[in-house]
Formats: sequence, structure tokens, C-alpha cells
Amino acid sequence: MHLAILTFDGFNELDSFVALGVLNRVKKPDWRVSICCPTETVTSMNGVTISAQSRIDSVETADAVLVGSGIKTRDVANDASIMSRLKLDPSRQLIGAQCSGTLLLAKLGLLSGVPACTDLTTKPWVQEAGLEVLNQPFFAKGNVATAGGCFSAPYLAAWFIARLHGFEAARDALHYVAPVGDKESYVERAMGNVELYL
Amino acid sequence: MHLAILTFDGFNELDSFVALGVLNRVKKPDWRVSICCPTETVTSMNGVTISAQSRIDSVETADAVLVGSGIKTRDVANDASIMSRLKLDPSRQLIGAQCSGTLLLAKLGLLSGVPACTDLTTKPWVQEAGLEVLNQPFFAKGNVATAGGCFSAPYLAAWFIARLHGFEAARDALHYVAPVGDKESYVERAMGNVELYL
Repeated sequence: MHLAILTFDGFNELDSFVALGVLNRVKKPDWRVSICCPTETVTSMNGVTISAQSRIDSVETADAVLVGSGIKTRDVANDASIMSRLKLDPSRQLIGAQCSGTLLLAKLGLLSGVPACTDLTTKPWVQEAGLEVLNQPFFAKGNVATAGGCFSAPYLAAWFIARLHGFEAARDALHYVAPVGDKESYVERAMGNVELYL
Repeated sequence: MHLAILTFDGFNELDSFVALGVLNRVKKPDWRVSICCPTETVTSMNGVTISAQSRIDSVETADAVLVGSGIKTRDVANDASIMSRLKLDPSRQLIGAQCSGTLLLAKLGLLSGVPACTDLTTKPWVQEAGLEVLNQPFFAKGNVATAGGCFSAPYLAAWFIARLHGFEAARDALHYVAPVGDKESYVERAMGNVELYL
């Protein structure tokens, strides 16, 4: 079971790493989560260079793909050499997008006729691509989910876990990372955003 | 103004990168936030290798130091070659610790007589070091703050911003990263944990 977190140059650290941290709370031998990049290294929007854990061609065989966000997503959307390698298939994969990642799913035609979530900066570009943008942090239909605002990243991660390992596994993952002294209410709020779409 | 986020091998991505992302919402020419490491590269608890943006010797001259968390913090606490280089001075620096980072501040004697926050895994080690551990996500006294549970990281970052640039700047930073459709209530909850200590 491979979950690939697509992470491009100029990426938003919160979006890729909150997903990575929450998804890795699942402790199963066949559970693999990777930061997946088009190049061997990428540098974040705040200048942190990281090494890829998998490469972009592996998205085709991944069981789940989470499209991260960043300040160069519009460049990625116009880069045929990258877009042509994003061979996503919601009939056999779970697919999610965080913030500006939603723009890439829109350009790939994976959100036709479905409203979507994204961040406030990306919102006009997603609308320009013909989509209805929701004023809420999370939405999913079938095997495709979108989330908006960095701290909706745990909701998107919880959705992946709930779909692949059940509701309780998602709750447990969020409970671990929730603030001390506020864990129960954090988990309730978070799962309240996700459970409508399971 | 340099804020160093101490990040060691085996680090928790959520703790270092949530701090980095939130702190970098402050857009001022003299505001510099760096991932600060003992070595040129470090590898996270989930296997992501990153390059340092500053090196550990720069903590002595940093204006603010945030001690990140990780799965090897007890090894760091017993490594004199690292601990001797952590020249922190709360009389002239803001100092914060996230989760297991609290253990390092305890070992450095910076939490004497002060209760502290940490994560549930680190709690017994911090208690063993003689500290009272609070069942709450955030606490600060004077120039030293501690936070417990990964998603208390935004509270710690907000405290640094509020202390250095004021309450409204902290609110603005959190508002940007908060989930879409829930931004006001997220910011209220988060700042509610911080404002008692400003």
C-alpha cells in the first residue's frame, strides 16, 4: 500500500509534512507513505531543500496520491513534461489535493462537475478553471477529495486513513498528533469535517 | 531578527515544519527563520532528508530559538558534543520547546521551578528530570515557553510572533494557515491558549 504525496519545487511545508506526519501514524508493515517529487531534490517556499522519497513516475502505481500545494503550482499546471506524467486514475486510486493542488486536479479533468476546496489565494484560479469553490475545509466525492487552508491537511490525511483502514484508525492517528489537553475535542472537530464524506 | 528552529536527526516533521510555516507568515525584511541543525543534513523520523538552513552554533546569536521534537531526543540529551553547543540565554533570547524538545530545555536547566508542556510519550522523561508536566497544550513564563502535542505547534509559533511583533501579527499568521470556512474560530481557539501568557 503506497501513498504518494506529490511535492514540487516551491512546495508549502505545512501541506506535505502534515500529511506525511499524520499518515505515518498508521503502523502497518505494508503501509508506505512517501514524499514524491519530479526531481531528486526540491526546495520549499521557505527555502528548505529536501530529498525525494519516491519519484513522480511512481504515482501511476500508487494506491493513493495526495497532491501537495506550493507557490509554483501554476507553473506546474503549465508544464506538460510534469502534467503528462501525472497518470492518476480515480477508478482504482484514492486521490486528494491540498490547497493549490486542487488546481492540478482541475487541469487533469478529475474534478469535472464536482465542487472543490482550495485555499483563498488559489480560489480564483480554480474558479477560472470552471469549478465551484466551497467555503469549507474539506469535500470528497467518491475517490477524489480536496481540502483548503493549511490546517485542513489533517482532515485530508484522516480521510485517506479512514478510507483505507477505517474510521477508528483515522481517529487514532489524529488523537496522537492533537494538542495535549484538547485531544478529544480536536478529534471530534476534525472527524466531523470528514465523516460526511465516508 | 533570526529565529532558529533546532532540528535533529530523527526529527518530527510536524513540529519543525509547522513552526517554520507559521513563523514565515511574518513578511518583514529583517525576519529570518531557519531550520537549524547540528549537521549539514538531518533525516526525519519518517525518513525525509533535509538540508540545514543554519548550523547549531548560530543559536548563541539567534534572537529566538525553538527546540523541535523527535524520536532521538533522549540521545541528544546525552550527547555532550551537542548539548555543550546549545548556548541559550533566556535573559536575551526567546526560547521555546515543542514536545520532546522540552526534555532538552529541562536538561539545560532552563525550566527550573517552572511547570512545562510536552507530549504524552515524553512526559515520563520530563517528570523524571524533576519537572511538573501540565495537561494543557501551551505554557510560558517570561521568555521561555513549552508546548505539547504536535498540533500545539501553531500556538508556540504564535507566541513567538506575538512577543516579537504583537498580538495582531500572530492572529494574522494563524488566520492565513487556518482551515477555510473555520478561520475565525480556529484563530480564537489558538490565541486563547496563548494570550494568557503574553
